[in-house]
Amino acid sequence: MPRYKLTIEYDGGPYVGWQRQENGPSVQAALEAAAQALDGGPREVYGAGRTDSGVHALAMVAHVDLAKGLRGDTVRDALNHHLGDAPIAVLGAERVADDFHARFSAVKRGYIYRIVDRRAKLALERGRVWRVPRRLDAAAMHEAAQALVGTHDFTTFRDAQCQAESPVKSLDAISVVRTGEEIRIAVEAISFLHRQIRSIAGSLVEVGTGKWSPADFRAALEAANRTRCGPVAPPDGLYLAFVSYDSA
Amino acid sequence: MPRYKLTIEYDGGPYVGWQRQENGPSVQAALEAAAQALDGGPREVYGAGRTDSGVHALAMVAHVDLAKGLRGDTVRDALNHHLGDAPIAVLGAERVADDFHARFSAVKRGYIYRIVDRRAKLALERGRVWRVPRRLDAAAMHEAAQALVGTHDFTTFRDAQCQAESPVKSLDAISVVRTGEEIRIAVEAISFLHRQIRSIAGSLVEVGTGKWSPADFRAALEAANRTRCGPVAPPDGLYLAFVSYDSA
Repeated sequence: MPRYKLTIEYDGGPYVGWQRQENGPSVQAALEAAAQALDGGPREVYGAGRTDSGVHALAMVAHVDLAKGLRGDTVRDALNHHLGDAPIAVLGAERVADDFHARFSAVKRGYIYRIVDRRAKLALERGRVWRVPRRLDAAAMHEAAQALVGTHDFTTFRDAQCQAESPVKSLDAISVVRTGEEIRIAVEAISFLHRQIRSIAGSLVEVGTGKWSPADFRAALEAANRTRCGPVAPPDGLYLAFVSYDSA
Repeated sequence: MPRYKLTIEYDGGPYVGWQRQENGPSVQAALEAAAQALDGGPREVYGAGRTDSGVHALAMVAHVDLAKGLRGDTVRDALNHHLGDAPIAVLGAERVADDFHARFSAVKRGYIYRIVDRRAKLALERGRVWRVPRRLDAAAMHEAAQALVGTHDFTTFRDAQCQAESPVKSLDAISVVRTGEEIRIAVEAISFLHRQIRSIAGSLVEVGTGKWSPADFRAALEAANRTRCGPVAPPDGLYLAFVSYDSA
């Protein structure tokens, strides 16, 4: 069956996460139901990664095999039609080679974490950002974050339930930039541990408030000890921003 | 009673509009209920303008007189507390002179209209932007829009129900800028007619698709005839962005 690469935007708020689960609606199950409605039989949709409940995607990548030899644009429009009111949008669909795999072919993943640094409650951005009422020093956060670049044992920033074989990961780049009341953390790596970015974001906020120095942050990383992690940031501010492939 | 200037963000989606009405919840009524809860008696909240149902505000300005002589920050935090889960946030509150009037003291109002120019349905920005699936030429829209700058009879871009005494208004500036898939129209004037910006935005989209030339747009303005207006853009993409005062 022809294979299609899908690029997908979604609001993670109403879902138990990307992955199909028994305990509630998932993004994957919604896409699979749409693919079945389009193609006339059960179809599995493979994502580039799993996002937790409440985590959003600007451009998740997935693949699906469809019996019908449709044009990519037709697949995109039909899936969007069958998704109905679900806050999931297929931004693009294109035919790819049979050996393309959304998860295993990926060479880089990028996430952004959005913080709104203000006293007032959220109105327009509720569920879309983490509001931190204390004034944050984004420059100090950026400085501290540079300790993460390279290959490290990320045990400190890894959820206790993480099922990855090793806590050692390579982080390619991280930046912390303030624009007005918003602070964006952008992170790139080939892959991440469970809750790694939310653990990093929460710990960087400890630096931003001045509770931790950049040296404290580095020491927490080097301790490779989960108890040294700061509070884990909520899912609301986290977005899967892109997934890169060598050629697809 | 001391007067306070309030700066307010809100999601207009769940409301009949800014103004208190019999037929549903309004932003004004929600703020007045919060002010009463704070101050112990009925309090009127005067806005700088009226936004329609579904229209948002990044920074509406209003004033309210409160018996308690509280600090501005305390008023802000207390109003936010009493607003509870409503998607309305008081960004700031400050004591102002008794002759400050949110509506009559305003010297300029700025709005933005957000369009997302793509085929795929909306997921994260639903209710927050107008999706236009046809490819739009933002440069042509910007060029056409310049005909509006200055003092004109805006009958073409005025709702039939508009209660303003005159259709003659002065528009200070308008720009149309594309960033990726998003097109933003920014407009500034001392005041606007009913549905003026949505009428302009809808007509500019006719230019963007190539259905109208910039000369057609100018001719529609000069006709001063409501039947020459393009489709009125939906409220979803409209945001009151700022209200300026000479000194307050």
